[in-house]
Amino acid sequence: MNKVIETILEHRSIRKFEDKLLTDEQIKAIVQSAQAASTSSFVQAYSIIGIKDKQKKARLAELAGGQTYVAENGHFFVFCADLYRHQVIAEINDQDAGEVLESTEKFMVAVIDATLAAQNAVLAAESMGLGAVYIGGLRNQLNEVCELLKTPARVLPLFGVAIGYPVHKPDQKQRLPIEHIYHEDEYEQDKALYLAQLEHYDQEISAYYEKRTNGERKDTWTGQMAGLLARPTRMYMKEFVKNKGFNKR
Amino acid sequence: MNKVIETILEHRSIRKFEDKLLTDEQIKAIVQSAQAASTSSFVQAYSIIGIKDKQKKARLAELAGGQTYVAENGHFFVFCADLYRHQVIAEINDQDAGEVLESTEKFMVAVIDATLAAQNAVLAAESMGLGAVYIGGLRNQLNEVCELLKTPARVLPLFGVAIGYPVHKPDQKQRLPIEHIYHEDEYEQDKALYLAQLEHYDQEISAYYEKRTNGERKDTWTGQMAGLLARPTRMYMKEFVKNKGFNKR
Repeated sequence: MNKVIETILEHRSIRKFEDKLLTDEQIKAIVQSAQAASTSSFVQAYSIIGIKDKQKKARLAELAGGQTYVAENGHFFVFCADLYRHQVIAEINDQDAGEVLESTEKFMVAVIDATLAAQNAVLAAESMGLGAVYIGGLRNQLNEVCELLKTPARVLPLFGVAIGYPVHKPDQKQRLPIEHIYHEDEYEQDKALYLAQLEHYDQEISAYYEKRTNGERKDTWTGQMAGLLARPTRMYMKEFVKNKGFNKR
Repeated sequence: MNKVIETILEHRSIRKFEDKLLTDEQIKAIVQSAQAASTSSFVQAYSIIGIKDKQKKARLAELAGGQTYVAENGHFFVFCADLYRHQVIAEINDQDAGEVLESTEKFMVAVIDATLAAQNAVLAAESMGLGAVYIGGLRNQLNEVCELLKTPARVLPLFGVAIGYPVHKPDQKQRLPIEHIYHEDEYEQDKALYLAQLEHYDQEISAYYEKRTNGERKDTWTGQMAGLLARPTRMYMKEFVKNKGFNKR
């Protein structure tokens, strides 16, 4: 195992950081790493907004549902799908690019571009001894996030990433069995096998929680997922994304 | 600079591979690295299909627009957004999870999950001395791809990743200026500055092509992007994605 794979496999989400800010050099190394990721047809359809302002961080923490580590960290990054840049280019060239920019295809391209960049950023941070956590809670109230960050149309904040010096080292949660995630030549057609894999995984996860809580928690993964499926969340997203000029046609 | 950041910054898309297959151990290390990535609320809403079958690879190469390296590589991975697993869980629990699974929010979650995993996979591969290239061309004819890979509803192939032993080392293309991608505290509000950054970048890219082609090619980035914006592509995506059970409400 080499240093890169070691860093990748060592990943855990860090939710408690030292009260110590990242230096500009660290931020630069993280953003340059993000930029080195592949980008579909070289479109570079994303932007990153780094938050230094303490009040803004506090407000974002509120908006994300009161997650303290959104405010208390070494630096907070917001990764955005960004086709505004291309809108500007269309304007310069007197093009009507609405059809292209508003397509579901380009929405996917922008989300994928931003996410590839983000994962590079996280790994770069982790390789420097820092910890990180993705903040999907940023999508709870995107309208307010956009106002706070003054994003123009065709820019959509997707998630935050809090980075800093870790003060805890949480256990890693066992992922789905590799045979369940990874299929060969075609998607698994054997439903009985598919279900058996899920059941096996449930037993593993259940044992993990039981051990960690001295027998108090007996959750399964499918049980957790059933809980999620029972709670529609962020159902405003379809209209919101459209209003921002994405995913319309 | 550490080994991880070095690997990240060394990235280039490799489109020509030795005729040498990855071992099962290599594939396993790559998939395990993919699985180590963060996943929104632990949903793990993705699957990876590895293609060994030569005929399938050849067909995928055709479908991706005749990209030979889709067929000729060490291994070909297809990364899919996957909410089928959650559909199965809903069925087991007698839940009607349509509203949740078909939401734009969960579509974004699945695309983000799959993409985080993919970037880990690519970096793991690169750290082992392999090269990789993302294949967005897989989205040219997704219907045929889904049939070939026998994916159920609520599974959406997003892109391929060809991995193998590189036989070339292409130049790296200069990314957008860091100040243009990275904003502090709010999105850049100074339009004149924003435009100047694009113009500066155009000059850099233009010089790069001129040097590489002995003066024959004088492309700018905004010129390339204007070209892309003039050609609507994959406009079937909105309906297709919906028919697969994603992004409906």
